[in-house]
Amino acid sequence: MGPERQHIVSSYDRELEGIQAMVMRMGGLVEVALSEATTALKTRDLELAEKVRKGDRVVDELNQAIKADAARLLALRAPAAVDLRTVLSVMEISSYLERCGDYAKNIAKRTMAMAGSNEIEGAMSGLVRMAKFVEAMVKDALDAYIQRDQEKAEEIIERDLEADQIYNTLFRSLLTHMMEDPRNIAAGMHLHFIAKNIERVGDHATGIAEQTIYLVSGVLPDDDRPKQDRTLTTLQEGDV
Amino acid sequence: MGPERQHIVSSYDRELEGIQAMVMRMGGLVEVALSEATTALKTRDLELAEKVRKGDRVVDELNQAIKADAARLLALRAPAAVDLRTVLSVMEISSYLERCGDYAKNIAKRTMAMAGSNEIEGAMSGLVRMAKFVEAMVKDALDAYIQRDQEKAEEIIERDLEADQIYNTLFRSLLTHMMEDPRNIAAGMHLHFIAKNIERVGDHATGIAEQTIYLVSGVLPDDDRPKQDRTLTTLQEGDV
Repeated sequence: MGPERQHIVSSYDRELEGIQAMVMRMGGLVEVALSEATTALKTRDLELAEKVRKGDRVVDELNQAIKADAARLLALRAPAAVDLRTVLSVMEISSYLERCGDYAKNIAKRTMAMAGSNEIEGAMSGLVRMAKFVEAMVKDALDAYIQRDQEKAEEIIERDLEADQIYNTLFRSLLTHMMEDPRNIAAGMHLHFIAKNIERVGDHATGIAEQTIYLVSGVLPDDDRPKQDRTLTTLQEGDV
Repeated sequence: MGPERQHIVSSYDRELEGIQAMVMRMGGLVEVALSEATTALKTRDLELAEKVRKGDRVVDELNQAIKADAARLLALRAPAAVDLRTVLSVMEISSYLERCGDYAKNIAKRTMAMAGSNEIEGAMSGLVRMAKFVEAMVKDALDAYIQRDQEKAEEIIERDLEADQIYNTLFRSLLTHMMEDPRNIAAGMHLHFIAKNIERVGDHATGIAEQTIYLVSGVLPDDDRPKQDRTLTTLQEGDV
């Protein structure tokens, strides 16, 4: 390897590291946004909700910057094999994180929209529990990616089953509250959508985990989104 | 240009055309899936719903094949400028279509889940109208892409505002039905989620249109997802 080639390679590595650093920063921001959105929902803190809503712009900008840098890297360096997979997986993970950010923003907006409505006793604790659960999934999915840990990534995909079960329980409980007292219907609808948003964050953590498996093994796991289905299957068999 | 280079260029073009042909086939399948999901919902045709549910596998497989071929093209051909943008936009459009397919499948599954529940008079016509509206958006977004028609793409982004208005009206109407008669609550919840799914298809048609603008102009439109927000803002000011 001549000095010229050496130069190109290390410059490539530096650029790739730069993009991965942006993804990690984005991941950190999304983790905080999810956590703060949950706190704002739980404590009805409209100021915090507004902060989350506004903060999503930075996540969106990071996503755009990551996509632009990745496209530039693909164009100028033409990476192959694992290097190519790294760039492609970074782009996918950036998309997943951007959508997680959207969900956090959405939860914040619904918190604001619910400001005047009924409080539904008992529903909130389930929501908060589910939110904490998927927050940890996102965090661990990013850790698995950084560590290129396929086993850890597979374990996250398994955990999404539990997230779906929590969602199902929540769905039924909210429905019961709404049926018992029509004054709960408006708030119940918002909480339902919040629950669905949280459940989708879990799906996206799974998507990030799948990218780690793709990066390490070169193969994307077969069943891309099994989770939505299970939720609905349970509903079908359930009491709705 | 020597014959060797000529050979490479036309082979590259052929590969790119092959990928774009797959995206168009995927688009056709998704259009049919959305249309059939709507028909199944409207006529309570469980057999058709099951057909839609099963058919999504082909869409998922096409998405995987497109991503794999695009990755191979990036690795082997290292396209630059508009060629690179073409490959990147094809990958993004494939993701959008895959999710539209998921929404169609989801509508089909909810149709099955609702088989035994109350019919809500008057809600269905609004849902079907909205579904037709966003189906046309998807179709036109793909046409705009094929024709590299930036103006047409911008017009689709505008149309999404109308889709959001239809969704808002629907949301309020369903809420009213649920409040008037608790027996409507379970069916109302499902119809709400279906309405939300349809609204999201409109968002994804907008995403496809944005990719056309990116492909033609090299710049992705600034505001990535303005629609969700407007829906929620209206809710806030509304009667919920």
